[in-house]
Amino acid sequence: MSTRKALYASNGADLAELRTNMSVDYVIHYSIPSNKDKAEAEAGFAQLIEVLTKVGLASEVRPGDESSVLIFVKVASNEYLASQIYRERVQDWLFGVRASAPEKGITEAFENEPVTEAERLRLVYLLITKPKNEGGAGITPKKGQWKYVTSVFPLHDNAFNSTWIKAWSTKYFLDDEDLDRVRDKFGESVAFYFAFMQSYFAFQLFPAAFGFAAWLVLGRYSWLYSIVTSLWSVIFFEWWKKKEVDLAVQWGVRNVSRIQHPRTQFQWDYEAPDPVTGEPVKYYPPTKRLRTQLLQVPFALSCVLALGALYIFCFGVEIFLTEVYDGPFKSYLTFTPTIILSSILPVLSTILTKFAEKLTERENYQTNDAHQAAIITKIFIINFITSYTPLFLSAFVYMPFGNLMLPYLQIFAATARKLSSEKSITTLDFRINPDRLKSQMVYFAVTAQIVNVALEFVVPYLKRVVVDKFQEKRASLASKPIQDAPEEHEFLQRAREEARLEIYDVAVDYREMVIQFGYLSLFSSIWPLTPLAFFINNWIELRSDAMKIAMSSQRPIPWRSDSIGPWLNALGFLSWAGTLVSSALVFLFSGESEGPGGDPSNVNVVGLLLTILFAEYLYLGTQFVVRYALGQVDSPGLQKERAMRYRIRKRLLEETLGPDAMKETVPPTPETGERITLAALKKDARKLSTGVAATPEQM
Amino acid sequence: MSTRKALYASNGADLAELRTNMSVDYVIHYSIPSNKDKAEAEAGFAQLIEVLTKVGLASEVRPGDESSVLIFVKVASNEYLASQIYRERVQDWLFGVRASAPEKGITEAFENEPVTEAERLRLVYLLITKPKNEGGAGITPKKGQWKYVTSVFPLHDNAFNSTWIKAWSTKYFLDDEDLDRVRDKFGESVAFYFAFMQSYFAFQLFPAAFGFAAWLVLGRYSWLYSIVTSLWSVIFFEWWKKKEVDLAVQWGVRNVSRIQHPRTQFQWDYEAPDPVTGEPVKYYPPTKRLRTQLLQVPFALSCVLALGALYIFCFGVEIFLTEVYDGPFKSYLTFTPTIILSSILPVLSTILTKFAEKLTERENYQTNDAHQAAIITKIFIINFITSYTPLFLSAFVYMPFGNLMLPYLQIFAATARKLSSEKSITTLDFRINPDRLKSQMVYFAVTAQIVNVALEFVVPYLKRVVVDKFQEKRASLASKPIQDAPEEHEFLQRAREEARLEIYDVAVDYREMVIQFGYLSLFSSIWPLTPLAFFINNWIELRSDAMKIAMSSQRPIPWRSDSIGPWLNALGFLSWAGTLVSSALVFLFSGESEGPGGDPSNVNVVGLLLTILFAEYLYLGTQFVVRYALGQVDSPGLQKERAMRYRIRKRLLEETLGPDAMKETVPPTPETGERITLAALKKDARKLSTGVAATPEQM
Repeated sequence: MSTRKALYASNGADLAELRTNMSVDYVIHYSIPSNKDKAEAEAGFAQLIEVLTKVGLASEVRPGDESSVLIFVKVASNEYLASQIYRERVQDWLFGVRASAPEKGITEAFENEPVTEAERLRLVYLLITKPKNEGGAGITPKKGQWKYVTSVFPLHDNAFNSTWIKAWSTKYFLDDEDLDRVRDKFGESVAFYFAFMQSYFAFQLFPAAFGFAAWLVLGRYSWLYSIVTSLWSVIFFEWWKKKEVDLAVQWGVRNVSRIQHPRTQFQWDYEAPDPVTGEPVKYYPPTKRLRTQLLQVPFALSCVLALGALYIFCFGVEIFLTEVYDGPFKSYLTFTPTIILSSILPVLSTILTKFAEKLTERENYQTNDAHQAAIITKIFIINFITSYTPLFLSAFVYMPFGNLMLPYLQIFAATARKLSSEKSITTLDFRINPDRLKSQMVYFAVTAQIVNVALEFVVPYLKRVVVDKFQEKRASLASKPIQDAPEEHEFLQRAREEARLEIYDVAVDYREMVIQFGYLSLFSSIWPLTPLAFFINNWIELRSDAMKIAMSSQRPIPWRSDSIGPWLNALGFLSWAGTLVSSALVFLFSGESEGPGGDPSNVNVVGLLLTILFAEYLYLGTQFVVRYALGQVDSPGLQKERAMRYRIRKRLLEETLGPDAMKETVPPTPETGERITLAALKKDARKLSTGVAATPEQM
Repeated sequence: MSTRKALYASNGADLAELRTNMSVDYVIHYSIPSNKDKAEAEAGFAQLIEVLTKVGLASEVRPGDESSVLIFVKVASNEYLASQIYRERVQDWLFGVRASAPEKGITEAFENEPVTEAERLRLVYLLITKPKNEGGAGITPKKGQWKYVTSVFPLHDNAFNSTWIKAWSTKYFLDDEDLDRVRDKFGESVAFYFAFMQSYFAFQLFPAAFGFAAWLVLGRYSWLYSIVTSLWSVIFFEWWKKKEVDLAVQWGVRNVSRIQHPRTQFQWDYEAPDPVTGEPVKYYPPTKRLRTQLLQVPFALSCVLALGALYIFCFGVEIFLTEVYDGPFKSYLTFTPTIILSSILPVLSTILTKFAEKLTERENYQTNDAHQAAIITKIFIINFITSYTPLFLSAFVYMPFGNLMLPYLQIFAATARKLSSEKSITTLDFRINPDRLKSQMVYFAVTAQIVNVALEFVVPYLKRVVVDKFQEKRASLASKPIQDAPEEHEFLQRAREEARLEIYDVAVDYREMVIQFGYLSLFSSIWPLTPLAFFINNWIELRSDAMKIAMSSQRPIPWRSDSIGPWLNALGFLSWAGTLVSSALVFLFSGESEGPGGDPSNVNVVGLLLTILFAEYLYLGTQFVVRYALGQVDSPGLQKERAMRYRIRKRLLEETLGPDAMKETVPPTPETGERITLAALKKDARKLSTGVAATPEQM
């Protein structure tokens, strides 16, 4: 628990060893199994040290646990690293990420733009993982030749983490500097997540307040609330698109997505010179990929079918047990659907996710980014179905068609009769429960969020306690306990602890927020306090995500990125779908009766369709107007970028053409013979037979 | 008629004077009224010559007709013009239009990239019209101080025009070179129109063939035809968006829309330094403009009301006269609605257009482009209503509600009874005419197009003949006929002729094509031969537009542009609206009965709404897929641009950092003390108390 000790130590003097990383850049966790693969692992270890040395990395080895070692890696020569960083900056400039070329001398370049920790760590990570032909060591954790490399991670900067968490837990809103600090430590990829979170949180203030007022005054299923929320979601989405670009410019990573890291698993069909750089590049025909991508359609359908069937089954059982069944063990039996769902759903999700990964693998993307984006899209589909199906079923199946479902529910009664010894099952009169939707929504907006935060906090904590205890026990039981040099002991203990932590995946956090945004835009008219609940949750979420990074994850590799990536599309889709779903909800459930009460003949289909159509056009119109209006406002980031490019070009121009290049030149006076004044014209009768003062009428 | 003589002269030897423009760059047509304003006009003339001289333009004056003079303008010093052109190229580079700066010396720069005629003429025109503070003469034809300047135009290059028209009339498809030639003569703005026309024409081959097949096999209101056409329109639209960028890169005008020519009428609220260049810039708050722009909503509504009322009135009269009325003069009376429409519609359109201009004026745009785009949007709205209302009324009012309209039509009968001496009006039994829609569509697709081409050809021809005759007559009657020097006579006659021609406005031609595209995507399922008719028409249209420029217009000012501008949005809107309207049409009219036959109870409203909703989603889905698929294909233009930028940067890099800058540097071997090999580790027990070969279990 030394990490947490350090985190909250107000006086760090006696914990100096926790505050220094002993200038280690990366730790490689290498497992050495004790079975027959041991020889192979040992050979791999020797190779590992060799390739690391070859790319200029020095390494020190210390024991990890009893079946692994920790290799502490450090750049041998700072000059070499500097030249690597300089090369990357030049590459950035070639790809249009930077407006200006770095200074000519390396020393001046680093004086003007100091190297951030994130930059250094990213470069070292690339040295370790880049393929050999690109100048790296080519180490791919857990894959192929390097299957015994469990993880490659930088050590946490505990001093920073402790001030970070302290600062964030004591303020309401984060400012740009807070985000900049995160960016300098964990890279733009993580910083973008927090920037998005912060913007989303700040924007939510409005629907939270409006929702609260609507809850007091307007009640559920309010037209006004629904329209205002849709409008809000469009504005937030369009605004974020601009903000994202601004941030990217500010952080100097705009267009960084153009610099793609090639996927090692990519299989090419042929090689051809790159039309831009002229270097040979591996190609895979996009039409061939497009054909594989078409498999996404049956994939999405089978997701809908598999997950839908599970949900419908559980839904049927639940309705039957809660609202029809009145026999023995009712209070226990009502948990049956929850038990079925929570046991089968994770399994099914895992299977579908694995399948999605296989499919993406077959789509054979050339770069990590494209691969990642394709996986995220598929995972979003799975999550969309698992998250929203219960509400969809309640709103659009249970409420309008509930009474028609009744005969089918008797199947369960018959089954139960066959299985149980009793001959008759007591049943209640079935009546649609009009509060079902609301209680579901409250569950998703409050209960599920609390459970989620708790899980994010408590489970890793418990897991760590258990693992630590287990390790201590095991170490004390070992025939020969690990003996560290006393001056290294605390430091090594900490490194061992960090090696056991999970790898942080920003996509998991994004997914959670995007799905939350979906609840807000699709279903929040059911319970207008939803945005308020989310607003409160997100304040905590933002801090708990920071703590997750600082305390229960390995320090993330500081990747760069210039946007929130494929999640942007997901947000846009949810904002659009939200307009349609919430308009349909409001149409179906607003008014005195609150819904069709299980009878489809109560639904005015023409009105419903007209409402959806109208909402759709309203959405498209609003989007057009908001885009236009935001387009009128100049973005400070883009302006800065333009100004920078302009200055650079102007300087270059003056350098090459001299300082007077853009000065106004004075036009020469036309030579006589070509010069004609009115006086001259008047004299010359031939030239001006009908001059100004001599129009025919005047003559 | 000497121009046309020259155009078709196979032997130009005897017409040399028509083939040379006597190195005149521009002709300024200056009118000198014979009334009390004469003194003012004369003073203006003196000033005109003076300001022209000041900006380095030489001028020669010759009589125009009896109340005007022609001023032949020419750049006095070619060196001065060259420096102007060079400055513009540098400016292009500063604004990111060019990837590379022009060569350092002016001479080398022009050797590498010769000056096209369009470039030269554009620069001279800017010299004449730019405000004085920007180094121009500040002449604004027909406005303010320069209200007597009727027009400023370059002379036609007859030799080019004659080969141009000849070449185009003898080939089916134009190639890139044809477009390049037009671009070199008339500038990118005109070239973009022809490029669009050509692409549109080539793309139409498919719906023309498919429509013909559909007409033979599927008949009217076919689902398949409608879906295929919608798909085609989406693909065409998305494809053109890419093509446009490609062309702009190829012509070196990409991003040229960033270089804006300020509007002289712009009124600013305050001045502030430009954030990019630092120069003081005039500002008008966009929020203030946005408020004025909101007036567009009542404007659009009043257009709909005014034009709609007119149409509905004429529509009622027409239905009454053709299908109800059977009294005397029926054959004459049926023309009444046509007469009403063709007399009131132009007046109403003109009023609305004037109003649109006023409104745009009030929106107070800073640049000519923004102003132009705003006018075009409004004119598109007016044109949309005037063009499609007849078909909308027939399809969605007459056909479903025809029988309900009948009582109202009796108003006309009553009115007629009152007006006429006869006491009773014979009437027919009203029956819905199911062929009404089709005959309207045939009218728009064939008759209207033929009439239009005829108008474009014949009217200017007749007008010219009449005007020429009139001028000849007038000249011969004048107290003192204009006497030209014999060697100049033919040339001056030609210049006088050209001064009388119309100014070419490319927006008129775009409008025609965009409206045609609308007929195709909205209504062509009514008559599947529509695309074939348009295809044939467009072959002629393309050539007739070329002839219009060459023969019946003044030579256009060769403006640059990097796209078809606001028409792109209009196309996108029509492609989207087309999906909805044509799906509704097909739903209403397909099948045996061919339409609801005037009775709204025959319409399945739920089905109709579902169809529209389904079509909408299909459209959005298709658009998404097509965009994605086209996004996968690299655009040759953008690729070229990237390659160019990359080369330039690489060269710059080598210049500044030396040729080895991007070479791989060799990593240094880590020093001893940091370097650890497995062998060394094994020896050092302290450092590797549990090394690879010494795990606790093995001990």
